[in-house]
Amino acid sequence: MQVVVLAAGQGKRMRSVLPKVLQPIAGKPMLAHVLDAARALDARRICVVYGHGGEVVRERLDAADLAWARQEPQLGTGHAVQQSLPHLSDGEMALVLYGDVPLIGVPTLRRLVDAAGGARLALLTVSMNDPTGYGRILRDAAGKVSRIVEEKDASAEERKVCEVNTGILVAPVTQLRDWLGRIGNDNAQGEYYLTDIIGLAVADGIEVASVQPDSFAETLGVNNKAQLAELERLHQGNIARRLMEEGVTLIDPARIDVRGSLTVGRDVEIDVNCVFEGTVELGDSVRIAANCVIRNARIGAGTRIEPFSHVDSTSMGEVCVVGPYARTRPGTVLGKDVHLGNFVEVKNSIIADHSKANHLAYVGDADIGRKVNIGAGTITCNYDSVNKHRTIIEDDVFIGSDTQLVAPVRVGRGATLGAGTTLTRDAPPDQLTVTRVKQISVTHWKRPVKLPR
Amino acid sequence: MQVVVLAAGQGKRMRSVLPKVLQPIAGKPMLAHVLDAARALDARRICVVYGHGGEVVRERLDAADLAWARQEPQLGTGHAVQQSLPHLSDGEMALVLYGDVPLIGVPTLRRLVDAAGGARLALLTVSMNDPTGYGRILRDAAGKVSRIVEEKDASAEERKVCEVNTGILVAPVTQLRDWLGRIGNDNAQGEYYLTDIIGLAVADGIEVASVQPDSFAETLGVNNKAQLAELERLHQGNIARRLMEEGVTLIDPARIDVRGSLTVGRDVEIDVNCVFEGTVELGDSVRIAANCVIRNARIGAGTRIEPFSHVDSTSMGEVCVVGPYARTRPGTVLGKDVHLGNFVEVKNSIIADHSKANHLAYVGDADIGRKVNIGAGTITCNYDSVNKHRTIIEDDVFIGSDTQLVAPVRVGRGATLGAGTTLTRDAPPDQLTVTRVKQISVTHWKRPVKLPR
Amino acid sequence: MQVVVLAAGQGKRMRSVLPKVLQPIAGKPMLAHVLDAARALDARRICVVYGHGGEVVRERLDAADLAWARQEPQLGTGHAVQQSLPHLSDGEMALVLYGDVPLIGVPTLRRLVDAAGGARLALLTVSMNDPTGYGRILRDAAGKVSRIVEEKDASAEERKVCEVNTGILVAPVTQLRDWLGRIGNDNAQGEYYLTDIIGLAVADGIEVASVQPDSFAETLGVNNKAQLAELERLHQGNIARRLMEEGVTLIDPARIDVRGSLTVGRDVEIDVNCVFEGTVELGDSVRIAANCVIRNARIGAGTRIEPFSHVDSTSMGEVCVVGPYARTRPGTVLGKDVHLGNFVEVKNSIIADHSKANHLAYVGDADIGRKVNIGAGTITCNYDSVNKHRTIIEDDVFIGSDTQLVAPVRVGRGATLGAGTTLTRDAPPDQLTVTRVKQISVTHWKRPVKLPR
Repeated sequence: MQVVVLAAGQGKRMRSVLPKVLQPIAGKPMLAHVLDAARALDARRICVVYGHGGEVVRERLDAADLAWARQEPQLGTGHAVQQSLPHLSDGEMALVLYGDVPLIGVPTLRRLVDAAGGARLALLTVSMNDPTGYGRILRDAAGKVSRIVEEKDASAEERKVCEVNTGILVAPVTQLRDWLGRIGNDNAQGEYYLTDIIGLAVADGIEVASVQPDSFAETLGVNNKAQLAELERLHQGNIARRLMEEGVTLIDPARIDVRGSLTVGRDVEIDVNCVFEGTVELGDSVRIAANCVIRNARIGAGTRIEPFSHVDSTSMGEVCVVGPYARTRPGTVLGKDVHLGNFVEVKNSIIADHSKANHLAYVGDADIGRKVNIGAGTITCNYDSVNKHRTIIEDDVFIGSDTQLVAPVRVGRGATLGAGTTLTRDAPPDQLTVTRVKQISVTHWKRPVKLPR
Repeated sequence: MQVVVLAAGQGKRMRSVLPKVLQPIAGKPMLAHVLDAARALDARRICVVYGHGGEVVRERLDAADLAWARQEPQLGTGHAVQQSLPHLSDGEMALVLYGDVPLIGVPTLRRLVDAAGGARLALLTVSMNDPTGYGRILRDAAGKVSRIVEEKDASAEERKVCEVNTGILVAPVTQLRDWLGRIGNDNAQGEYYLTDIIGLAVADGIEVASVQPDSFAETLGVNNKAQLAELERLHQGNIARRLMEEGVTLIDPARIDVRGSLTVGRDVEIDVNCVFEGTVELGDSVRIAANCVIRNARIGAGTRIEPFSHVDSTSMGEVCVVGPYARTRPGTVLGKDVHLGNFVEVKNSIIADHSKANHLAYVGDADIGRKVNIGAGTITCNYDSVNKHRTIIEDDVFIGSDTQLVAPVRVGRGATLGAGTTLTRDAPPDQLTVTRVKQISVTHWKRPVKLPR
Repeated sequence: MQVVVLAAGQGKRMRSVLPKVLQPIAGKPMLAHVLDAARALDARRICVVYGHGGEVVRERLDAADLAWARQEPQLGTGHAVQQSLPHLSDGEMALVLYGDVPLIGVPTLRRLVDAAGGARLALLTVSMNDPTGYGRILRDAAGKVSRIVEEKDASAEERKVCEVNTGILVAPVTQLRDWLGRIGNDNAQGEYYLTDIIGLAVADGIEVASVQPDSFAETLGVNNKAQLAELERLHQGNIARRLMEEGVTLIDPARIDVRGSLTVGRDVEIDVNCVFEGTVELGDSVRIAANCVIRNARIGAGTRIEPFSHVDSTSMGEVCVVGPYARTRPGTVLGKDVHLGNFVEVKNSIIADHSKANHLAYVGDADIGRKVNIGAGTITCNYDSVNKHRTIIEDDVFIGSDTQLVAPVRVGRGATLGAGTTLTRDAPPDQLTVTRVKQISVTHWKRPVKLPR
């Protein structure tokens, strides 16, 4: 099976410099959704038809399994499919998809391909309450598809038909090539319509099968930002439903956004207004509190992420407690039972089991052992204006509040750093290390007074 | 009046290790909602029927006013009520509720109990647009309930009936005992159905009254996480409506979550996406800005909570300004006109009137007087790795930025601490206390250069 | 053209000390929305009719172009308009609006005014699926409005009419004055109804034109907090739609709140749950991530605001990266390519191109040059307990972590401050300045042990 994806539309109504098919649903270009569906069908070849200004589409999404056909000028859907013909092999079937119909589902397409078998033409049709404006599917007395009539050409009786054409179809390449050579552009738009091949198929005695999609949303196209947002929400609704089927407790299915892959264990709970991006894995009994942003993370069983946390490219062990207002940046690896509290940032650091940084801290480029306590206001000074250096903190260390660790530096096992220490050399194990001056009080000192203006 | 609550269902479709009736709505187990409704009716006895694996239900919700009956094996709703009979007193009425029908309302139940009087059987029924699948309420020519027919046994005519059985009913215990002894399990599932007592009541000449609920949502049961989420939103919608009736301005009634009790004064405004948990009291003219999480708090009149604040187990006086990004933890008590600013954490501390901590600070285990200014970056070093100590800051103190107060320590009235001070001994009143070294500049110093890789 | 706005209703059902017309939609009093619509029509005079307790309305919204008429007691809408007559000029047209019907649209009003021409009476009517309770528009055989019949006076046939009166109308002042003098209060409420002028107009042979609004929401009135919230959401939905028409990508149109004016360039993307207040301008390709609050800001092209940021009265140049958890307060001016990271607060400061403050810092009352690096935990000590002082940091400065800059102070071009420095005097250019003490380690020191209780 081969797939042709029509992706040449400019989408002026999107009011964007980005070509329409690159507009994102769930953070991924619409066309990429369609290509993923095509790939899930194990297509032998996928040909994308792009248009004027579409080089950026090719640059952004090119891959080894894609062929690219340029359509210029753009003379209709039939003309577009024609551009793909050099890439298609006779004797096989071709599926035509659309880069701006992003929610098309693989099970629906499988049924469509099955309906075509190896020789029929199979059309995806859909029944609408209000079919106004769409091409109606006309059937003969035996119920077989006989032709498609456009709104403007339809009789009053024909307009009552509620089954309409989605444009998605499967056809044998050999015939497709023949039909596309025979369709004309003698219509109001002066365009070559792919739809016209249906009449030719019927005339040639090729049976036209039809299939309806699993859900109506699969057939919706996007022409403006309102439709893009509508499909975004439909897509997110589908994801929320699937998560709930897998047993996730969602406090509000209308307030979760998943942009990528979210894998969940048992008894996961996700509170309102969370956003997941990239590849996220949540272990059993993980709880994500309200208003969290989680990107590319692996979170161990029993870990709790408190509100307002921002987790990026992080691995967390089991039963950690993170947040509220914790931010982990790429390269963060937390062991088991690690606690990160409020206003704590961790970057490119490993923090081993049972260690804690509970308040107002910056931990960057550090290796932190087990059972370490990082006091409030601790800062790893990892950057000397040009280079980044590592801080090593061994097991059982207690770092007093407001300490600066000027990297590269090492704090030995069991060491204690006094509050306010600026550590510029290694701290020996098991000792108290400080930089401390005598506390003095000035007896006759007066507070400042209001400056004259 | 006595209440039987059926709570033995395992709820496999919830896909959870937690028994179904412990799944939460608004943060509280569904069964607890039902028990609260039963208690509001002043039931003389409440008997919960639990099942296999239900010990955790008993452990979690046991209370002095509850009797527990174990149902094992589980042979249907009639069989379940049978298990409760040893706990019920003849000559009284019994109300049957369901642990997985959590939104049942007390006014509806009062009407149901009233309809039963002391001798009738009263059924809660509901009219549905699409009753498919539900047991239909059949009535005689006089309009009296004559029997309930299940979907599969119903004639085409009977299936047109839109009034269906909810399963909730009130019956005299004496008759209930008798009827339950007479129902059989000669049906497809081989189960004893509580519903079958209706026919017996009619046969016995006991009048069957019926009542419809105040809202349809009260009769909805939960079998999977999608239904749990649906009821969560219905419940939150009810709470939002009630708050608005009390005069609260909600910027978006679809984006507030209340899990517990929220009491409000006049002219309270709550912006979008706030979460309230536990017992929260908001005084007159309190404004809660967007994206706040408030748990177990008492907030004085005129106080403003700015966005992204996280308030837990805190008492605040009047006209405070808290946040954005302020976090108060358990044991926080703020006086009047206290200001807590961004990235400030307060824990187990008392802050008296007109004091301020506006930026990046950790205040833990502290007693802070009136008109104190806590500078940016101030940290109370309350933890010495094993013990917590208190910091005392008297009235009119000015704490310079980035100061560490190593507790136990006291700052006397009117004292000033210089920026960057590490305070290890008490600071005398009215004096300037510092730990300060001479500032030096190194003339020929060169910035680091890029390290070779 | 002259406008009368009826704003005397107390609105007891709002349960607020604030008069009804001051209740906000999108952060602005309902009455102010109506006044803005009136102003957009270039009304020659706008007269607001206020009532008992309405002085606060006048205080809050008074302006040079407004006349105020007091209605007391309040004897109906006809009586209310009567109070405005002394302010109206004969020979002109008067438009009657309502302070609690805030979404009325200018294009609708233009059409209404046009329909009135200079001599007709023009009524805004609306067709409802369920008109129960509303005054029905009755028309003669020629389709002309003949009268309005109230629900209780309507025949069964009349009640089937779905076109109802909105109360909004335009009439010639001369006739209006005459008709209002002739209407009575012989009805159940004992009130003078503005509606009654319709019958008088017809009797006088004045043609009654009618116009329907562009959307039904324009005619909705507010009597309680639930309706206020409903209109808030309708209004926000309108704004979201308009933004999408302008090309903005909204991830969820149901989760954006705009309270004021939001101007956008091309290819702007706004993620879920953002709030915009005041006047906000977003340049081309600006991206606002989830959960941001942006007030009175101008944000340059290509700038990214990361999640949980709070921006107030700030100007940002191009390609800045701000947040997550960045807070900018009034007087913040960022140049091009400025980076503000997590837990960073900036107030009344100018930060020039390519400078960065990426972690846990307070920058207040500072002038910061180009290519400056502000280390983590840096604090400008701008407040000496009574006065605010400025900090000057010249180009190419590197501020080490956890530094306090005790203002007024200047850091010369190219200077470096060591970590933990308390800077109390100016730092010379190109040199390293520190306040540093010797690091010592205490060999036989023991960690504290658990205190006895």
